[in-house]
Amino acid sequence: MNDTTLKYFKQQLPGLAGGYTLDVPDCAIKLNQNENAWDWPAHLKQEVFERVRDLPWNRYPPFTPDAFVGKVAAHIGAEPGQVLVGNGSNELLYSVFVSTLERGRKVVIPQPTFTVYKLLADLLGADVETAGLDDELQYDSAALEKAAEDAAVVVLATPNNPTGSVIDPTDLEHLVNTSGALWVVDEAYFEFHGETAIELTRSCRNLVVLRTFSKALATAGLRFGCMVCHPEARPIFGAAKLPYNLNIFTMAAVETAIENAVTMKTRVEETKRERDRIARKLREYTGVKVYPSRANFILFETERSPRDVWKAMVERGVLIRDVSGYPRLGKALRVSIGRPEENDAFIKALEYAMTVVA
Amino acid sequence: MNDTTLKYFKQQLPGLAGGYTLDVPDCAIKLNQNENAWDWPAHLKQEVFERVRDLPWNRYPPFTPDAFVGKVAAHIGAEPGQVLVGNGSNELLYSVFVSTLERGRKVVIPQPTFTVYKLLADLLGADVETAGLDDELQYDSAALEKAAEDAAVVVLATPNNPTGSVIDPTDLEHLVNTSGALWVVDEAYFEFHGETAIELTRSCRNLVVLRTFSKALATAGLRFGCMVCHPEARPIFGAAKLPYNLNIFTMAAVETAIENAVTMKTRVEETKRERDRIARKLREYTGVKVYPSRANFILFETERSPRDVWKAMVERGVLIRDVSGYPRLGKALRVSIGRPEENDAFIKALEYAMTVVA
Repeated sequence: MNDTTLKYFKQQLPGLAGGYTLDVPDCAIKLNQNENAWDWPAHLKQEVFERVRDLPWNRYPPFTPDAFVGKVAAHIGAEPGQVLVGNGSNELLYSVFVSTLERGRKVVIPQPTFTVYKLLADLLGADVETAGLDDELQYDSAALEKAAEDAAVVVLATPNNPTGSVIDPTDLEHLVNTSGALWVVDEAYFEFHGETAIELTRSCRNLVVLRTFSKALATAGLRFGCMVCHPEARPIFGAAKLPYNLNIFTMAAVETAIENAVTMKTRVEETKRERDRIARKLREYTGVKVYPSRANFILFETERSPRDVWKAMVERGVLIRDVSGYPRLGKALRVSIGRPEENDAFIKALEYAMTVVA
Repeated sequence: MNDTTLKYFKQQLPGLAGGYTLDVPDCAIKLNQNENAWDWPAHLKQEVFERVRDLPWNRYPPFTPDAFVGKVAAHIGAEPGQVLVGNGSNELLYSVFVSTLERGRKVVIPQPTFTVYKLLADLLGADVETAGLDDELQYDSAALEKAAEDAAVVVLATPNNPTGSVIDPTDLEHLVNTSGALWVVDEAYFEFHGETAIELTRSCRNLVVLRTFSKALATAGLRFGCMVCHPEARPIFGAAKLPYNLNIFTMAAVETAIENAVTMKTRVEETKRERDRIARKLREYTGVKVYPSRANFILFETERSPRDVWKAMVERGVLIRDVSGYPRLGKALRVSIGRPEENDAFIKALEYAMTVVA
């Protein structure tokens, strides 16, 4: 064996390679992944199965699932020729990055944000610049404009995870219209906010909007996301996406979710009300800082060790997310909004933690 | 809009970007994608649904699906710590390429072979060298050894698609053991051949074996594949794979397929017998050249225009694959082995085509 140097790898040796990781103790109440708190009703699950039961499982899915893409496009308010579909929006972000990034190219990623953006950019050897969120973790349009000047790509999430911040639509339109970079706008939490850049993709060829069904549409276990771009740009991104990436079951589930989106929408409204209730409650505590959120989670800081607070809450069966390892979030925790009784349990567990943690 | 140059793209403009494409007229008999000819029996489909029915669809799948990976590993004869799972083996090939290839690095891809290898390598800007198949489209070990000398990666499929060729296991062991390159061995058609390099992955850190459930295991519609490598290399490849890439339904279907693999195995034996029967039959025709195949398809050449033969067969309701656009295959067609009556229909349609095509 003469392969001890593993010199064909671009990245470091095992152990140094930093993949996405997650610490998940078993807790009765799970508020750590910004999931929808309500499972699918049994009759909708049954409907999905009936859709796939008579399909040939031994055959590849359609090469171009046009009918399916048309339904997704109609649901999100785009033209079919603007949409690509994938196993979660991350798969499409991967395609966008492979189409645009390589060693020697710059990508702007405001921090703190969803970890996967930087992991993928690093894999491709791109130069990652951190810019775009101010001291209060709100979007800073001037800083974004400056950082974008010599960048190939700018990625921003609105609402941003884990901060909950949103970009002003007028600012975004100005940035995209005056920039030579590709702007990738992740709208994973769109339904909890309500503002979208999809309309802009009709005229701007340097804009990609990502959407997921994992959050508002309660489909995290089925893995589905899509992207919207100018029709002229779609073939380039499409060439960086694998053929037959979506399986027949995911497509059936997504069609069912779309047809029943109205039912699911009441859960979104309930989640928003609960988010605002919990934010108000958190602001009542002395020494707790609450960041404004337009998503289905809340970022907050206490004056105590976030790891110790997190652990004390796990003891009480409530799992939230310790995000103190993120850049600039040394004191922060993130809680996903669950069902009302789960949110009440979160408040009780937090009060307990603030009592026992010094 | 000042984005007319789309300069953030690494590749050419739309229309020049060469994605994977497929021409699929509607035919009663479908022998164009090397699929398993038999759909899943209804009771196994029902079993899959029962496995997913009580799972929470609103929750992400397990972050590390250890129990699932363990079952897959046991099925293919590897250790769990050697295995990564994905939506088809292509997704894992993508991860392997992103881990190893970039502009200025060389990858060896024998031609003709599965189109996706070169498409992905091109996306990453790698230098693609064609070498390794001789005049009869059989693996040439000396040519591979020479081409690998300054390569980061060598990709070979055994049995190869669309030629059906296989590499000698002793040759492969020698190549891997004496090379500083990473060897990626795609065993998509393993079950129709029977020889595997998985054992070698236990000692060689520069070897990746790809497997799929789309062929022998009749699961093309569910999209599942896996890769096997040395345990020390797995974390690096794993870091280039997206988290939560597999959905809960795919995992349930794969577990069901594994537990019922014995049932499915009789279909593999039948396919092998049919392959040999059809190859013998094709060799009886004057002017038809048949390449030896260890897979579930046969590559053959006639003295007529392959496109015209293909069209005449489509008229008769039999869809095979026109592979004459592949390098070195200007006269060739590929037929997947189906059920016996489908193979008989193929023979009849081919005889018809050879009568009507000049």
